Amino acid sequence: MKKRNPQLNANGELHHLLTIEGLPRDILTHILNTAESFVTVAEREVKKVPLLRGKAIFNLFFENSTRTRTTFEIAAKRLSADVINLNIGSSSTSKGETLLDTVDNLSAMQADMFVVRHAQSGAAHLIARHVAPHIHVVNAGDGRHAHPTQGLLDMFTIRRYKEDFTRLRVAIVGDILHSRVARSEIHALNVLGVPEIRVIAPKTLLPTEVEQLGVHVYHDMAQGLKDVDVVMMLRLQNERMRGALLPSAGEFFKHYGLTADKLAHAKYDAIVMHPGPMNRGIEIDSGVADGKQSVILPQVTFGIAVRMAVMSILAGN
Amino acid sequence: MKKRNPQLNANGELHHLLTIEGLPRDILTHILNTAESFVTVAEREVKKVPLLRGKAIFNLFFENSTRTRTTFEIAAKRLSADVINLNIGSSSTSKGETLLDTVDNLSAMQADMFVVRHAQSGAAHLIARHVAPHIHVVNAGDGRHAHPTQGLLDMFTIRRYKEDFTRLRVAIVGDILHSRVARSEIHALNVLGVPEIRVIAPKTLLPTEVEQLGVHVYHDMAQGLKDVDVVMMLRLQNERMRGALLPSAGEFFKHYGLTADKLAHAKYDAIVMHPGPMNRGIEIDSGVADGKQSVILPQVTFGIAVRMAVMSILAGN
Amino acid sequence: MKKRNPQLNANGELHHLLTIEGLPRDILTHILNTAESFVTVAEREVKKVPLLRGKAIFNLFFENSTRTRTTFEIAAKRLSADVINLNIGSSSTSKGETLLDTVDNLSAMQADMFVVRHAQSGAAHLIARHVAPHIHVVNAGDGRHAHPTQGLLDMFTIRRYKEDFTRLRVAIVGDILHSRVARSEIHALNVLGVPEIRVIAPKTLLPTEVEQLGVHVYHDMAQGLKDVDVVMMLRLQNERMRGALLPSAGEFFKHYGLTADKLAHAKYDAIVMHPGPMNRGIEIDSGVADGKQSVILPQVTFGIAVRMAVMSILAGN
Repeated sequence: MKKRNPQLNANGELHHLLTIEGLPRDILTHILNTAESFVTVAEREVKKVPLLRGKAIFNLFFENSTRTRTTFEIAAKRLSADVINLNIGSSSTSKGETLLDTVDNLSAMQADMFVVRHAQSGAAHLIARHVAPHIHVVNAGDGRHAHPTQGLLDMFTIRRYKEDFTRLRVAIVGDILHSRVARSEIHALNVLGVPEIRVIAPKTLLPTEVEQLGVHVYHDMAQGLKDVDVVMMLRLQNERMRGALLPSAGEFFKHYGLTADKLAHAKYDAIVMHPGPMNRGIEIDSGVADGKQSVILPQVTFGIAVRMAVMSILAGN
Repeated sequence: MKKRNPQLNANGELHHLLTIEGLPRDILTHILNTAESFVTVAEREVKKVPLLRGKAIFNLFFENSTRTRTTFEIAAKRLSADVINLNIGSSSTSKGETLLDTVDNLSAMQADMFVVRHAQSGAAHLIARHVAPHIHVVNAGDGRHAHPTQGLLDMFTIRRYKEDFTRLRVAIVGDILHSRVARSEIHALNVLGVPEIRVIAPKTLLPTEVEQLGVHVYHDMAQGLKDVDVVMMLRLQNERMRGALLPSAGEFFKHYGLTADKLAHAKYDAIVMHPGPMNRGIEIDSGVADGKQSVILPQVTFGIAVRMAVMSILAGN
Repeated sequence: MKKRNPQLNANGELHHLLTIEGLPRDILTHILNTAESFVTVAEREVKKVPLLRGKAIFNLFFENSTRTRTTFEIAAKRLSADVINLNIGSSSTSKGETLLDTVDNLSAMQADMFVVRHAQSGAAHLIARHVAPHIHVVNAGDGRHAHPTQGLLDMFTIRRYKEDFTRLRVAIVGDILHSRVARSEIHALNVLGVPEIRVIAPKTLLPTEVEQLGVHVYHDMAQGLKDVDVVMMLRLQNERMRGALLPSAGEFFKHYGLTADKLAHAKYDAIVMHPGPMNRGIEIDSGVADGKQSVILPQVTFGIAVRMAVMSILAGN
């Protein structure tokens, strides 16, 4: 007998969003379709809907990320929820309380949803296993593991510009090894039926046995970008460059930075994506980042709609 | 002639909540009864009521406490208030402005209520004496002096599980000396008619002349817990253990940490309380903290209802 | 042909508020008149109006200022807006993202308004030039340049107490050189037709060619305050006193601190203003600050109404 996915309830409905891995295609498609309706909400004069009115959403950010926290905060407020921001690094854990005691306490305050960011892989799963049945957990990034709402907003963006996933060639470029974003993207692309997923990176920035994720490996941009429909850049963490994994930012940019010249190998109408924040001149050239193939800012906009979709599917009135 | 309690208006109604000391029993009972109605609000699909709609509640936290601030923030939002969180340590006081100038300025922004946390005993009283007549002050903990909403939520919890205060034997265990929580609990238990209040602590963690508060002193857990209905544990501040007051955390736990063995001296249906955050293995054993006699998490839940009651009684439309 | 004011749209309506310089008198008067209606809102039981319901206001504070941020937050919440507070110092800019990338990202989250505080003069203008046409920018203080809502609330206060600008003699006292508040006040007083504006300061705290702003310069308080209707004190930045610009706080107070004796040179019904936070005993004597001619706290109250007016004129439904 198959072990039940910890994200689904007994009826096979989404109860937590922890990772895209193992989610069926119809659930991803339902989220993307729901997000479509919220894109139009954002264009209205009054951008609010009452779907989470009276619900308490706790942003539990054990790792600081103003940008991601802000997108969840806006999404929740557009759904009329009450939002509590907790920067947990500076809170009870510094008083010696354990992570699960903190979660128990917040649960006892009748939270309806925890949006969790944590430097440790698996933190959101741990919390989801622990909380009371009426509480929903959304993983907003855990260690190197997963960042599912980023993966979903990327899929939403691709579908908006390219429509049919089953005819696409997609390249993911950069630091695959340390990237939870790349993991979530690869899972989502696979589930949605993209036939050819490529990763382009130096050997030092690739996980071992990365091919088992269902991707083709390239170490050269000209070859890897050849005829792709979608180029998904990754952020290069500054701290990697101080280590032994990379020679220098200049060397990296020379070989793997996305320039107009390299992008010319892709299809003429390929779109360029980046999860932000960008390091201009390191993983991406400014001309490309701001160019006509870039959909980097639409990604941000769609991110609000996708997070509204996830939150309303999980906890909507 | 009796001096008027600074917390009451000319009609004897609650205007500020600064300390439980000196409040008449009917006011405490009114708060507890009002809180009962808010417990059911929290169980509804939409947890909001409009009692503080349009009111501005300022959380003035001169001493950091994410947990307590969060409970007040949730309570205020459930009452539909606008909540402004001010971490004053990083604000104008660092620009040389005095505490009272800061309060004057915030008052001039048409605040309706200040929830004040301060490391100095008496800070909330000082502010209450100073503000304009339409502003309400709630003490969320001042130095070693008082933490009245904690005391009230503890009383609410006791009443929920034990009903009649006038038949109870209650023990408070741990660092009485430095605890504003203990002070508020003792005052509340006395006002509500608990006939036997015990404190259990080593001599170094007891105030001089503690008996004048109306308590019986024990230095031994077996004797002190004998036949009690309620065990109220206190948090041991880590910094105490670095000083001369305590031999070591291990020694403290051995003598005063609440274990199943020691708890067996209490009545078989005694409840175990703790204001949090807990130091597991120092003042309380994990098995007891998570055991069937523990009401530690219900305390948190009731804390929201009690704070909603206090805020709506003070400033409700 | 005259260059269009970057704050006005093609119809000559206010689209951003960046500086008072160059704004026509009818726009200032419209803001002041609109603020009048919001003063009464603040006196109602329910202080909210739905003019910005569903609008997302981002407080972008690159320079910390709890007090100013709080006034904008309260004003926005009274207009029923959703408010997102971003302390940008601790956010993406620390991840190497540029200011304009940060702004682009927040714009893509469908912000309706940015309230910007920045240590660099011109930051709000830069952002206003960059954002999409539907977004409004309010300057909440940029370097030494401008603080237009402070200037406007000061004008509102003067009008409340003195009515006709065209009969007034106004003195601004203190550190004119470093003060964006002084610049905004001088522009506003000029536009509103105040016939005699004086600045009183030591030479080291005056900009070169300050007379070109349309003011009369005094170095002596007795002469400068003679027969004025309004005394506008400035905050003395503590850091100035550590430099070579000032001998000492005591010396400054002796010559330029506002005492009852010096104030006696002004008209008997002159009002005393200060933008806060005050350094009592440095630029102003406590007796004067708290005295019957002081309108320092009404300034704060009117500041909420003026900010509500600005935000609703810019982005109201």
